[in-house]
Amino acid sequence: MPQNIVVLVGGVGGARFTRGLVAELERRHPSPSSRPTVTAIVNTGDDSWIAGLRVTPDLDSMMYTLAGVNDDERGWGLRDESYRVSAEMNAYGVGWPWFTLGDLDLGTHIARTALLREGMPLTDVVARLASRWNDGAGLPVRLLPVTDEPVETHVEIDLGSGPELVHFEEWWVKHRAAVPAQRFVQLGLAAASATRAVRDALATADVVLVAPSNPVVSVGTVLSIPGVRSSLDESSAPVVGVSPIIGGAAVRGYADACLAAIGVETSALAVARHYGSRSRAASAQPLVDSATPPVDSAQPLVDSAKPVVDSAKPNGDPAPRGLLDGWLVAEEDADAVEAVEALGIRSRSVPLWMKDAETSAALAGAALDLAAELF
Amino acid sequence: MPQNIVVLVGGVGGARFTRGLVAELERRHPSPSSRPTVTAIVNTGDDSWIAGLRVTPDLDSMMYTLAGVNDDERGWGLRDESYRVSAEMNAYGVGWPWFTLGDLDLGTHIARTALLREGMPLTDVVARLASRWNDGAGLPVRLLPVTDEPVETHVEIDLGSGPELVHFEEWWVKHRAAVPAQRFVQLGLAAASATRAVRDALATADVVLVAPSNPVVSVGTVLSIPGVRSSLDESSAPVVGVSPIIGGAAVRGYADACLAAIGVETSALAVARHYGSRSRAASAQPLVDSATPPVDSAQPLVDSAKPVVDSAKPNGDPAPRGLLDGWLVAEEDADAVEAVEALGIRSRSVPLWMKDAETSAALAGAALDLAAELF
Repeated sequence: MPQNIVVLVGGVGGARFTRGLVAELERRHPSPSSRPTVTAIVNTGDDSWIAGLRVTPDLDSMMYTLAGVNDDERGWGLRDESYRVSAEMNAYGVGWPWFTLGDLDLGTHIARTALLREGMPLTDVVARLASRWNDGAGLPVRLLPVTDEPVETHVEIDLGSGPELVHFEEWWVKHRAAVPAQRFVQLGLAAASATRAVRDALATADVVLVAPSNPVVSVGTVLSIPGVRSSLDESSAPVVGVSPIIGGAAVRGYADACLAAIGVETSALAVARHYGSRSRAASAQPLVDSATPPVDSAQPLVDSAKPVVDSAKPNGDPAPRGLLDGWLVAEEDADAVEAVEALGIRSRSVPLWMKDAETSAALAGAALDLAAELF
Repeated sequence: MPQNIVVLVGGVGGARFTRGLVAELERRHPSPSSRPTVTAIVNTGDDSWIAGLRVTPDLDSMMYTLAGVNDDERGWGLRDESYRVSAEMNAYGVGWPWFTLGDLDLGTHIARTALLREGMPLTDVVARLASRWNDGAGLPVRLLPVTDEPVETHVEIDLGSGPELVHFEEWWVKHRAAVPAQRFVQLGLAAASATRAVRDALATADVVLVAPSNPVVSVGTVLSIPGVRSSLDESSAPVVGVSPIIGGAAVRGYADACLAAIGVETSALAVARHYGSRSRAASAQPLVDSATPPVDSAQPLVDSAKPVVDSAKPNGDPAPRGLLDGWLVAEEDADAVEAVEALGIRSRSVPLWMKDAETSAALAGAALDLAAELF
């Protein structure tokens, strides 16, 4: 029985999956003392400075969902939200008018920014913010930002006046990913590394799950942080992923546009091939398409507050293995199971829609079961 | 007829007086083209960092009041305010729980802080924020922070475990000035100077008015900023002040506690004596009581983010003159007029309560009339 479960996650999809995992573990292990611990390693590539406040969308989706205060209907943010502060900010001409921050959400951003500006590392800030919930008992999952250093995913687009780099959120929210992404650039990557807490969590993991998050900008960013791939490669824990694609379409968001930018088809099989088999060297199944790498060696086209040095190699680790021992695909993609297994990845088809708490828990249970087969 | 009027102000009282001045000038000069300009030089000593946001209470009281969006009933802040963000901040344990920031107000603080962190001087930030109001036409008064450098008034108090320095707002709001102030210390003063805009405004002023603001921590701080006293001393404009004391009591706030700390009686005459006559050297009428100077040469007792060097001299300017050519006292203090005039300060008794727009305008008119006598 696994004692330590680690989940690699992005935002909303990862949060739902992790919430399902918590519910499934509570069902399987009614006694808290015998229940495995869950640690989520969370993407920080969508983080940004907005009006002097540090905003961390994926960490917040995880925190709000696991605290039970997220807005499930809208899919993101907090329930019972209001927008009085943002209206004032807009009136002063400050901030991103297309990225409206809720009042309750701003309370989180102000608190986070205040602690960061006091010099507290992001990992400790996240722990401090998380400790507020459940009457001070905190969250059922330990949230770890993959790195304490700012790494921000930028996207090269062309709006008609030549290529330019914009923050991922600008492409995603303002342009709704409708403008083709030429490539992704992770500003700050060369100066970043996985935290000690992340490496320790991976070193002591019995099972590693890969949430059905965006394979390029969420899981891809987590994997790109130096120290993550090497820690995974050294681990003996089985790594089981959940496909973010159902029947050839992204479950949520514009993952198809991200996959297209790196030359990967929007299919459960293609994403499995992109992640690669753990039993084989990643060089045979490159993490990123070499023609359009998500992490580029070019200098950024726009100024950034942070010095930018991008490495030509995606993660700085030597000769990584592929990612996956196991891969859950949707029932709609059952015919891909055989081809995935031919890659050297154990595969099962299961109901993949996380419609509610029950289906999310069942999906997490299927991932745990597949991991158990792979011990 | 004066073309350029300068008002030295603190917060709420200064804002009401300035609003009355604007109304009176509109009444006397219906044509905007012939109307004198008004420049307010605003105290910044109450400014502070709260949860990573720069909060400037007096500048905001001025801006909100002159924009017509202030809460007149409560006396401070914005109308129709709510407190959702502060509740979140408190839940995270960030900020000053006894200093609740409204949601609309936080919009201002976030905008200000974002611009300051971009490197914009406070003077320009204030102009930018002010330009938002009146459908982009801005405010009827030019608001100038007395300095762009952070100068924060701290108060030495003893809560039973020895003397400690706390921010002025902590003493004023949390302790309601009920703990005796031993002395005031202006952190950052030695590194500060009046802005070029402030010195130019004083150099071109035809009339200088001193609002009925706190003589110690509002007007006193404005006067303490190096460059203010020397600019006033070089000006030929009459300086007319309005007493903040009516019948031996502070009109608002805890000005009596501030005056007590520097050994000045709470009376219209004592404050006039404290400010001093402009026709005499200030050395005969020291700005601050030498036993308990509001600006102390001692090092602060608590750490501060800003290096602190306090000068032994209150303002760093050579041998300043007293402040006042004229002094308006309340009808209740009519018997002080003779004694004030004996100080070399022209004095009149007038209705001093700013109950509403009319009485505020009449008071400002009386100040203008006294200034006209002194040309």
